[in-house]
Amino acid sequence: MALKDEALMLGKKAKEAARGLGQLSSEQKNRALRRMAELLETRGEKILGENARDLEQARQAGLSEALLDRIALNPKRLQGIATGLREIALLPDPVREIVKMWRRPNGLQVGRMRIPLGVILIIYEARPNVTADAAALCLKSGNAVILRGGSEAHLSSRAIGAVLGEALAEVGIPGEAVQVVESKDRGLVHELLQLEDYIDLVIPRGGEELIRAVSANSRVPVVKHYKGVCHVYVDNDASPEMAAKICMNAKVQRPAVCNAMETLLVHEKIAPAFLPSMIAQLRAAGVEIRGCERTRALATGVAPATEKDWTTEYLDLILSVRVVKDMDAAIDHIERYGSQHTETIVTSNYEKARAFVDRVQSSAVLVNASTRFNDGGELGLGAEIGISTSKIHAFGPMGLEELTTTKFVVFGDGQIRE
Amino acid sequence: MALKDEALMLGKKAKEAARGLGQLSSEQKNRALRRMAELLETRGEKILGENARDLEQARQAGLSEALLDRIALNPKRLQGIATGLREIALLPDPVREIVKMWRRPNGLQVGRMRIPLGVILIIYEARPNVTADAAALCLKSGNAVILRGGSEAHLSSRAIGAVLGEALAEVGIPGEAVQVVESKDRGLVHELLQLEDYIDLVIPRGGEELIRAVSANSRVPVVKHYKGVCHVYVDNDASPEMAAKICMNAKVQRPAVCNAMETLLVHEKIAPAFLPSMIAQLRAAGVEIRGCERTRALATGVAPATEKDWTTEYLDLILSVRVVKDMDAAIDHIERYGSQHTETIVTSNYEKARAFVDRVQSSAVLVNASTRFNDGGELGLGAEIGISTSKIHAFGPMGLEELTTTKFVVFGDGQIRE
Repeated sequence: MALKDEALMLGKKAKEAARGLGQLSSEQKNRALRRMAELLETRGEKILGENARDLEQARQAGLSEALLDRIALNPKRLQGIATGLREIALLPDPVREIVKMWRRPNGLQVGRMRIPLGVILIIYEARPNVTADAAALCLKSGNAVILRGGSEAHLSSRAIGAVLGEALAEVGIPGEAVQVVESKDRGLVHELLQLEDYIDLVIPRGGEELIRAVSANSRVPVVKHYKGVCHVYVDNDASPEMAAKICMNAKVQRPAVCNAMETLLVHEKIAPAFLPSMIAQLRAAGVEIRGCERTRALATGVAPATEKDWTTEYLDLILSVRVVKDMDAAIDHIERYGSQHTETIVTSNYEKARAFVDRVQSSAVLVNASTRFNDGGELGLGAEIGISTSKIHAFGPMGLEELTTTKFVVFGDGQIRE
Repeated sequence: MALKDEALMLGKKAKEAARGLGQLSSEQKNRALRRMAELLETRGEKILGENARDLEQARQAGLSEALLDRIALNPKRLQGIATGLREIALLPDPVREIVKMWRRPNGLQVGRMRIPLGVILIIYEARPNVTADAAALCLKSGNAVILRGGSEAHLSSRAIGAVLGEALAEVGIPGEAVQVVESKDRGLVHELLQLEDYIDLVIPRGGEELIRAVSANSRVPVVKHYKGVCHVYVDNDASPEMAAKICMNAKVQRPAVCNAMETLLVHEKIAPAFLPSMIAQLRAAGVEIRGCERTRALATGVAPATEKDWTTEYLDLILSVRVVKDMDAAIDHIERYGSQHTETIVTSNYEKARAFVDRVQSSAVLVNASTRFNDGGELGLGAEIGISTSKIHAFGPMGLEELTTTKFVVFGDGQIRE
């Protein structure tokens, strides 16, 4: 079959399945999710066997250890996936929730009711766990999903997909609600991205390159997650102890993720007292420091930061540090070099805390807390399907609610327009 | 200057202006809006003079009377625009509203705060009033706007734009907050649509052809408003009097708009008693009726409806009518042929009212009220910048809130992730 027809068939099946998904009861969806979790456990050996074949092929292809680790499943990881599905079953169902209701002078009662988006296409790289997580979030929010994972984890994803399909069938939900793309052909993705009449949203999960490629080729709206150049600004009115604790956590706890701190901005009045010990502590934890001139004058072992450093998402134990005149200069720096992802101010000053929160236009703006909290689970969304760094449809972590839209519902008594 | 550079300059200026707009006080924005209204009144003669020149050129170019009417301004219409601006000044300011706030187990207080989208591009056809309306809604919601109106109303739009710019300057808001595109070159629009790093959202206002062209060429997210094939379903448990009143209003009050009824679906049990007089009443009001076989058996003067009729947005005094077996058949018809715009059920049955509202996935679903209420003003949004028929970002009428997004704000006491 031509790729175009194959894509169209996937899109049509998904759209047809989507018609009924918005009407499923919460209990039916939750039963499917719990059954998926059970089957992942009981079919664990089969899935791990397929995963071993993926890993073997990846090794032969000479993939890096880091990539192999992303592909790899083991009993503990599989258990983690099953636990994740059970947690999604416990989350409140967003579908058909009335989020607001009001009355018009003519007596009409008007409300906004959440409904599923319809069909969602997820394009992801080598993590087979995404197959289950993303499918579960889409199902719970009443959406049909087309999953297209990285070819390196192809067999693992297929094995997981088979289990998900079996669970759906058992509880009477059409299997087309979750379609795992079998083809390894990249051209198929391109064809899927043209189907604006069948697919409502594309969520690419992976590196910036993947997301730019999807965005450039898609007629379907795309949730973009570009980089996280996250800042901590330590104000002169900050508690140095709290600032140090937050900076260490933001940089060191998990440096390879998008909400880790990449640039530290320090008010010039606190810099002499704060930076030397802060830098020593960071360096002791293995962090390479690149600083502005004033930073370098305050601490040893600091390489000069270039203009490029300010815009770089290191995703590594590297930190750029800049001494700034005041909060205004910090905000200017963030606006100029940042990526609107996550910014923290550390301060005990009420007015500055308020002003920072008002003025910084990033997806998460925090006072006296680690940047690492910009995460769907940590913010209380329950789970996340991705993070949006563009402002359309969703900004920041996307949970179940962000996989829905609202329709207007209107209850009248025969009203007409005059 | 090359078109590409011209577009880039517009985008850069808008983005720069947008930086400060989210921080303006409501009072400053409202003063600008009221001053715009005053200036539209005091400069009325100048604007009407330019409009007369537009009309003269349009007449020479042989444009239709309908199009001339869309271009035409007069003192009353100008007054209407000014009144609209004053009404927008009276609406609540959505910017920096905290829409929700909750507490996490670790003590973090997490909320969602509305912020402007950034830069909005409005592409519209020949209505010069859009220049003022759209600019006002974007300003009130803290967005910079680039306005590109139809070349037929070019001079009128420019004159209105000059007045808006003057009002902005008087209250100290950068004039780049509202840019009216001077060039008549269509290539410039194409270049603007490539500026995904400068423009956050495009709203095309006009016919389906314009919207499809924008959507096909844009890298910037587009709010799509395709057609409104709106249905009224008259249930067997409907009051025939109420149903007739609603149908007349939905079809006849203003047939050329997107929320007018295009197809009437009637339960087979009520059809013999209801349809003959309903059709007679519609025909007396000048409506041409195209019906299914069963409709034609019940009333005279009904042309046969073809498959194409069911999907057609007439925007005229034409109505297609179909007798259906029951509500399920009505919903099937709506899902198959409709455009997810506006659907009404007329019924006195509680269960059916609830089921219709739950099951129909259109941007507005009404019980016992005219389809004509699917309008930002009528639903209580205050004003509307457009209607979205796609589900991403907004679905249905878009008011001020739909010109914003939310960021997460987090207030902590030194929390870090374990």
